[in-house]
Amino acid sequence: MMKPSPKFHPEFAPLLAFGAHPDDIEFGCGGVIAKETHAGRTAHFVICSRGEAASFGTPKQRIAEARKSAALLGATVEFVELDGDAHLEVRAAHAIKLAGIVRRVRPGIVLAPSLGENQHPDHPRLGQLTRDACRLARYGGVRELRQAPTQAIKQLFYYAVTPEAEPANITPVLIDVSAPHILKTWISAMEAHASQATALNYIELQLTWARSRGLRAGIGHALALFPNDPLVLDSLAQASRGARRF
Amino acid sequence: MMKPSPKFHPEFAPLLAFGAHPDDIEFGCGGVIAKETHAGRTAHFVICSRGEAASFGTPKQRIAEARKSAALLGATVEFVELDGDAHLEVRAAHAIKLAGIVRRVRPGIVLAPSLGENQHPDHPRLGQLTRDACRLARYGGVRELRQAPTQAIKQLFYYAVTPEAEPANITPVLIDVSAPHILKTWISAMEAHASQATALNYIELQLTWARSRGLRAGIGHALALFPNDPLVLDSLAQASRGARRF
Amino acid sequence: MMKPSPKFHPEFAPLLAFGAHPDDIEFGCGGVIAKETHAGRTAHFVICSRGEAASFGTPKQRIAEARKSAALLGATVEFVELDGDAHLEVRAAHAIKLAGIVRRVRPGIVLAPSLGENQHPDHPRLGQLTRDACRLARYGGVRELRQAPTQAIKQLFYYAVTPEAEPANITPVLIDVSAPHILKTWISAMEAHASQATALNYIELQLTWARSRGLRAGIGHALALFPNDPLVLDSLAQASRGARRF
Amino acid sequence: MMKPSPKFHPEFAPLLAFGAHPDDIEFGCGGVIAKETHAGRTAHFVICSRGEAASFGTPKQRIAEARKSAALLGATVEFVELDGDAHLEVRAAHAIKLAGIVRRVRPGIVLAPSLGENQHPDHPRLGQLTRDACRLARYGGVRELRQAPTQAIKQLFYYAVTPEAEPANITPVLIDVSAPHILKTWISAMEAHASQATALNYIELQLTWARSRGLRAGIGHALALFPNDPLVLDSLAQASRGARRF
Amino acid sequence: MMKPSPKFHPEFAPLLAFGAHPDDIEFGCGGVIAKETHAGRTAHFVICSRGEAASFGTPKQRIAEARKSAALLGATVEFVELDGDAHLEVRAAHAIKLAGIVRRVRPGIVLAPSLGENQHPDHPRLGQLTRDACRLARYGGVRELRQAPTQAIKQLFYYAVTPEAEPANITPVLIDVSAPHILKTWISAMEAHASQATALNYIELQLTWARSRGLRAGIGHALALFPNDPLVLDSLAQASRGARRF
Amino acid sequence: MMKPSPKFHPEFAPLLAFGAHPDDIEFGCGGVIAKETHAGRTAHFVICSRGEAASFGTPKQRIAEARKSAALLGATVEFVELDGDAHLEVRAAHAIKLAGIVRRVRPGIVLAPSLGENQHPDHPRLGQLTRDACRLARYGGVRELRQAPTQAIKQLFYYAVTPEAEPANITPVLIDVSAPHILKTWISAMEAHASQATALNYIELQLTWARSRGLRAGIGHALALFPNDPLVLDSLAQASRGARRF
Repeated sequence: MMKPSPKFHPEFAPLLAFGAHPDDIEFGCGGVIAKETHAGRTAHFVICSRGEAASFGTPKQRIAEARKSAALLGATVEFVELDGDAHLEVRAAHAIKLAGIVRRVRPGIVLAPSLGENQHPDHPRLGQLTRDACRLARYGGVRELRQAPTQAIKQLFYYAVTPEAEPANITPVLIDVSAPHILKTWISAMEAHASQATALNYIELQLTWARSRGLRAGIGHALALFPNDPLVLDSLAQASRGARRF
Repeated sequence: MMKPSPKFHPEFAPLLAFGAHPDDIEFGCGGVIAKETHAGRTAHFVICSRGEAASFGTPKQRIAEARKSAALLGATVEFVELDGDAHLEVRAAHAIKLAGIVRRVRPGIVLAPSLGENQHPDHPRLGQLTRDACRLARYGGVRELRQAPTQAIKQLFYYAVTPEAEPANITPVLIDVSAPHILKTWISAMEAHASQATALNYIELQLTWARSRGLRAGIGHALALFPNDPLVLDSLAQASRGARRF
Repeated sequence: MMKPSPKFHPEFAPLLAFGAHPDDIEFGCGGVIAKETHAGRTAHFVICSRGEAASFGTPKQRIAEARKSAALLGATVEFVELDGDAHLEVRAAHAIKLAGIVRRVRPGIVLAPSLGENQHPDHPRLGQLTRDACRLARYGGVRELRQAPTQAIKQLFYYAVTPEAEPANITPVLIDVSAPHILKTWISAMEAHASQATALNYIELQLTWARSRGLRAGIGHALALFPNDPLVLDSLAQASRGARRF
Repeated sequence: MMKPSPKFHPEFAPLLAFGAHPDDIEFGCGGVIAKETHAGRTAHFVICSRGEAASFGTPKQRIAEARKSAALLGATVEFVELDGDAHLEVRAAHAIKLAGIVRRVRPGIVLAPSLGENQHPDHPRLGQLTRDACRLARYGGVRELRQAPTQAIKQLFYYAVTPEAEPANITPVLIDVSAPHILKTWISAMEAHASQATALNYIELQLTWARSRGLRAGIGHALALFPNDPLVLDSLAQASRGARRF
Repeated sequence: MMKPSPKFHPEFAPLLAFGAHPDDIEFGCGGVIAKETHAGRTAHFVICSRGEAASFGTPKQRIAEARKSAALLGATVEFVELDGDAHLEVRAAHAIKLAGIVRRVRPGIVLAPSLGENQHPDHPRLGQLTRDACRLARYGGVRELRQAPTQAIKQLFYYAVTPEAEPANITPVLIDVSAPHILKTWISAMEAHASQATALNYIELQLTWARSRGLRAGIGHALALFPNDPLVLDSLAQASRGARRF
Repeated sequence: MMKPSPKFHPEFAPLLAFGAHPDDIEFGCGGVIAKETHAGRTAHFVICSRGEAASFGTPKQRIAEARKSAALLGATVEFVELDGDAHLEVRAAHAIKLAGIVRRVRPGIVLAPSLGENQHPDHPRLGQLTRDACRLARYGGVRELRQAPTQAIKQLFYYAVTPEAEPANITPVLIDVSAPHILKTWISAMEAHASQATALNYIELQLTWARSRGLRAGIGHALALFPNDPLVLDSLAQASRGARRF
């Protein structure tokens, strides 16, 4: 359970990331988390199962791995019980439960798994639930949520756990995660999920894929995030670099 | 002809905007230009016809209007002869000519009309020529360009002169142009094209449309730009606001 | 509850519109309703919550506002209880309940909120339920529906409550709502939702957006509807005007 | 050469159809032409090559076939020389030449081959040229066109000569061509292209495809047209039937 | 209930096809089934309702028709009870039940109805459940499935029961079903659904549509299947023919 | 100039690959070429410039590199003069010239650069020219081509030279190039372009990208090809493996 923390920087609203399984956030966007927490932003993870349907790892191991990994990334973590691993359904009650977390944590930016249907079914369902939760968090009349003030987040980004989960209809933003200490922290966070990392080549998949994107952008490694809504910019200075090698 | 200018701020590479007709830049993205020049960035316009095929205005009037409008926006302006208004074709020689301008002006960000085909045919053709020009500007062996050093721009954005010209497959970024002095400058720049503004309700179209976008984003007025390539960000702090009212 | 009405014109099958909240129909397509009822078509509204999760307005107020607004538009109205505001789920039982209404009202044209997921979650879910209901209404063997004869509607159109809800993959039809008495009736119907209209600038959003579309089409104001299926025409005379200013 | 004709009905602006080869209009939308001319609308065909690159038929034969076929459909016909069959390029001069025809014929509705690139290369190029021509026809300052008054058409529709040429991103309208005399006229017009019809099974392709669409719409045979711009309707009565069998 | 069968060819993993109603598989892809069983592959059908909501036919008749039809196609068949015809919902428990069947049958290729939403609502829901089931079948930790070993299928293809159900975003593969004995077997299998075939012209729809595709491909009749994931090929010899008549 | 070759295997029609620059074929699909020639298929390369606009390498060097690389891949090679590097335009005369090569070489499968516009402008233009050339090759009446018999190819595939050039609207096929001798041959062929390979990390880009795809497909390395038309299959046995790890 996340405690009210003295680490909150006044200039940074916290980052709130949702994952369907104990390793989704790390594999899908761990490098971005590392970068933000290194820059002083608070990050909090909400994990919606204990990974109990996976082929490898016990729930106990997986919770321990998630705690270790979050700590490496400088994030706090909590576990939420919805329908269980491989059993997640899109229910209004779930969206309302997640909306309650949004009201409690009061994030600026929220991260969720992408909505593409051709992946583990829990991923797009949690993505949908998170998107809906971010809306419900600002509706004043939802009776289950009345004990906490409404919260309007600033941005919702999707991350893709695997390549086929990348949204085809959203132009991504690429986050440069090439700095050695960032890359190293991200790799450590993935390796902390030892029960998953040994059996399959998930880490190689993520790094190869991030390197492909980085090469395209003329940098080292890059992670892609997919904004739910167009970015609102004050100035082109915020958007002065594109992923083009020419 | 743009002269080497003492106004160049070292921290800002200049902005280079291409327009097919004397009023395209102002109608399509004049508010963004105003914002950037107010922030100290140098802007240069390249206009590729004298608007001689339009129903209203003589070439002489239209050049004068364009000069007045660019001055109001704080931009320099030059005219380039390609095939003439309503006669533009996609030719390698044109792309190379524009690439020469890119090498001379050495911009960070380039603006061009969008590629959607269902608009004045000169617009998407100039968009294509600009995109190609930005690439050719960095190829060292193009013989016509050898007198100037290669130039790799950082970003290419498209602007839409009319609503049907908005690209359907690119997530836009929205630029907040709500500040009164910005909005006023933009309107003045559009009004400077008196030969066009009186006959049709182009200015109302642009303002209504910008207000629609602004309302969606929870601000006053917003202009949309469409990046040719994904944005590369150092941090989520650059992307901390989305066009969502929830 | 709608009563069998002597007002039914033989040449016009009634129009049936579904809304998730008391104001959705008016904000999304009220001008079209006004135009059709002025032309003598019967219209009936089915509202699927009392708006109890909104930040403003009590259920009692909102029901009163919906009744007043429907009366201004010349439509009858009924309220249906599904899962409640902000709690709607896609359930077969809901679709069957709505199919029962389709069989009772026997409409030619049905209107429903659009399916785009990036909006209030109740909207696309009601859109899906309506689409399914229109199909189920014609299957003779659905046991819950056997007491009423099957009904095959002629057309299903989607309306968008907000701009981001516009379907990207359907070419809209634009309905001209520029006539002063139509526009005035539509505005009155939106203003009747006083609890919503005062707090936010929804009315300005709708009018700005309708004016943008109208300017594009060379008329005053226009509302967009998105057909679920291609239009079947007897002659091009039915399609003799396009939204083009050239 | 089309002569000013006493047959012009005041209530119907003429229909103008462009074809790249002598048989394209008949195969792509002959049934629609038959329906419109039977209803009293004037139709004029502009054919932009003599079909000289085809495997079968001499130019002389093909011109004769086109004249016979147009007569069967009740349309006048003219031949325009652009670059020749299989040699068509997108040139501004061609668009201006076609714009001159638009100004002369003064159509309400224009028909052109679809823009999909995966078909005979002359088809999408003529589609592009026609779209551009319809725009240029209304620009007052195009010097080559000054001898004729500007003309703003009402609608541009694309027809698909083969199934793979159907635009994926436009919702079609379906025209019911089931009436026996319409279907018979269309088939006769296709058969008039004897040099093409005997060698390949083009007629079966068109009829099978039209029957597929008709079955989907619950009617006999249907042809699809793809509007370049959204339809502007005065009332839903113009759009009261959809291609749905439920 | 399918029994372990001595007919299993060692070189062919069985084909497993899911249908929401007793006739979906036959109408959507019966010709493909015929071709595969004639080539010696084992096929098994899983039918997820008794068709009890249809306008024609009793459940008893429809089960008999399905058994007769499957026998004609050389397939075994079983019936699974989910929520009933016209009542299907996307539930995790259903996906797990179907995953159990995947583990039991151990197919290489799985066929399911397509995901397009604009069709009978049971179809896309069964498509989603099947896709998820194929994933869940390989997750070792799903407790309801532990009694059977995990199974990783090789391919999931979607079939479209009606034309509007064809996925727009997947390039299909076309299966040549022109051989007279294949076509005859397919037609017989459709005719075996006598309660459906007499009332409507479904068989003509399927054959017309297959002939359209066949003409496009330069063959007789062709059925389209839509792969869930890109095909992995050892050599271009496996892909040496395209649906092009040029 | 390719000579009629005794190496032609009767069971394999030759493979014909077009490249805009001396290294495009090798970087975009060299591994596929290696696999096909190892399997006994004849391959012929047509290179449409000498790479004279690139930043590195002289035309003479680049031609030598291309010859060496083609030899390593077991392919013959010829150079065709169109408009020159960075100067290519879409002209009917070019398409006809390439159609003449198609008639001479008589390939079954043709490879060309992809049509995505956001890449080196010569690439999509050559892709368009090749697609058109494959069509023109079968039209009997094209006068410039009459000296050679018509040729109907079986398949046209596109390759992507860089990741942003991948077509978004075509489902690719993945070719397994994991076998050590294939991978080694491909790398050697890329390294043969020494003038390009040393300056930039193109080889790492291709290998990282191919490894990403391979990991997704559960194999080593994979190259993607994008079919211009749906594959026509005799049996599902030709499509029995999908790029899915589940």
